[in-house]
Amino acid sequence: MSRTSNEFERIERFFAPLTEGFPGAFGLSDDAAVVTPPAGRDLVVTTDTIVAGVHFKGDEPPRLIAAKLLRVNLSDLASMGAAPLAYTLNIALPDTIDDDWLEDFADGLRADQEAFGIALAGGDSVSTPGALTLTVTAFGLVATGGALRRSGARPGDAVWVSGTIGDAALGLAALRGELAGLDAAAREALVERYRRPDPRVELGCRLHGLANAAIDISDGLAADLGHIAGTSGVAATLESSRIPLSSAARAALAADRELLSAVLTGGDDYELLFTAPPGAEEKIAALSAGIGLPLTTVGRIDAGAGVRVLGATGQEIALDGKGWVHGGG
Amino acid sequence: MSRTSNEFERIERFFAPLTEGFPGAFGLSDDAAVVTPPAGRDLVVTTDTIVAGVHFKGDEPPRLIAAKLLRVNLSDLASMGAAPLAYTLNIALPDTIDDDWLEDFADGLRADQEAFGIALAGGDSVSTPGALTLTVTAFGLVATGGALRRSGARPGDAVWVSGTIGDAALGLAALRGELAGLDAAAREALVERYRRPDPRVELGCRLHGLANAAIDISDGLAADLGHIAGTSGVAATLESSRIPLSSAARAALAADRELLSAVLTGGDDYELLFTAPPGAEEKIAALSAGIGLPLTTVGRIDAGAGVRVLGATGQEIALDGKGWVHGGG
Repeated sequence: MSRTSNEFERIERFFAPLTEGFPGAFGLSDDAAVVTPPAGRDLVVTTDTIVAGVHFKGDEPPRLIAAKLLRVNLSDLASMGAAPLAYTLNIALPDTIDDDWLEDFADGLRADQEAFGIALAGGDSVSTPGALTLTVTAFGLVATGGALRRSGARPGDAVWVSGTIGDAALGLAALRGELAGLDAAAREALVERYRRPDPRVELGCRLHGLANAAIDISDGLAADLGHIAGTSGVAATLESSRIPLSSAARAALAADRELLSAVLTGGDDYELLFTAPPGAEEKIAALSAGIGLPLTTVGRIDAGAGVRVLGATGQEIALDGKGWVHGGG
Repeated sequence: MSRTSNEFERIERFFAPLTEGFPGAFGLSDDAAVVTPPAGRDLVVTTDTIVAGVHFKGDEPPRLIAAKLLRVNLSDLASMGAAPLAYTLNIALPDTIDDDWLEDFADGLRADQEAFGIALAGGDSVSTPGALTLTVTAFGLVATGGALRRSGARPGDAVWVSGTIGDAALGLAALRGELAGLDAAAREALVERYRRPDPRVELGCRLHGLANAAIDISDGLAADLGHIAGTSGVAATLESSRIPLSSAARAALAADRELLSAVLTGGDDYELLFTAPPGAEEKIAALSAGIGLPLTTVGRIDAGAGVRVLGATGQEIALDGKGWVHGGG
């Protein structure tokens, strides 16, 4: 029979063990933690909240929810060029959450702590009459003054992306039953990309000195390029034919060309989008080979404002507010 | 007519202005913030989540909710001896929250930012199908290695508390209609203490070198002294007749002596409880006079384990799990 611990038991049983290796957590026995960067390092802080029924369904395996929660935050650290250090966790639990759920959730956290070299530093555990609500605040380290910013893109920069784009949005479409005619392996590959994003932590840490601006792709390729252009005060052009696609995404687009809109505007890929000056191509190719992650030029930065998206023959294509693609002039 | 902004509008209008004076927030335009302590300082991190229907009713004036949210976190910083620096804010908003609510909430944050010298550094704003859920993660500064801990109490230490104890629990009882025969001014004073706790920030910062252990009183005087005793591996004795009471609390207890249980076990006072070695009395008296805050000895630390509570004639009194006081042997 499942049982439900009280707050003190929960912390002691499930969460205090996750602080191992991080002395500043004081084993969760104090009012606060100490998270001090070493000399020569800045502390980068990011925080994300996910809510059952909004950001995830709620009936996923708890370890998958844990992975998504941590990874969306690690992706934000990566986009700033920061190496993961520690995180705090706030959980608001409805009374449907029992100890079995918490055990699997903590197992998921532990697995990703080991994968990404991060430890729990503190947190809060409360009950809620509403939806399961999870907040992670993640801490990372960069060289002093070296945090990558959205605002550094300069005219002449090339626009780069890591990995492949659109898989997560297509995976979500598949989960919703909106993707017909895909074989099981391709479908599963897309769904896995949606469910368990792979934050580009190593890439982020190695973009220092190479990239002028960076962001992680959470809102969608076009929107996130728009954030770079907006905060940098420049114009950006995206060549849709250059966007790197997985074989599963290529198969989906071959069956339904309209899905290009999902590739351009769907979020949740958690790849990195960055700009780098002309002449950086060789170093970026060497970095790509070194970390085993494709890095692809998908556009360029110019003086001006806004984001233009070009189709296969160079024609401009328009995205409406809902992200649908319209053939343009 | 009230209207509801989308996430980007919300951040731009209500929250970005709260980052003024904190350059590492980048005006909320980036993926993360930079929060680096200066040389010679440790960064103390604490986080608390409050949920409508659990930690507050939900229909309070938004600025009062903002004050409570910030202040419970500032109290945790104070208990570690840390001076407030910055905070991140995560809000999960049901669709009943409109721009008028957000404006009043942001006004409350701004007022306390000015009162306590703290600025917004980052955050996340999401929607929820459930209860309004608010998380603050607060950052403070202490001298390197100088964070006050729960675990430093030593046999022979005196147990001290700041201010007056029990007001918040009695204020909550008054709000629930459980407190009869109190005049309006006394009732209002108690309710205000519950609604708008006064974190002992200045005291916390000045306990460095004086206190061996410290905690803020959020779970209740007896329980929080128990946390000190437990993590320090010592026994604690509390003399209930020495507990400092406000005139409103004295009036309430004169009418109903059973309310002593609320004083001993009620939470939410957010006073500081600390232990200090014999011989520190003069310095503590000078500190009390200097900051205009009563500091009172309420017990002592001995070798052993557990917390004993003594009544007016020195007899031991027992608290059951629900916090009720039983006359003892």
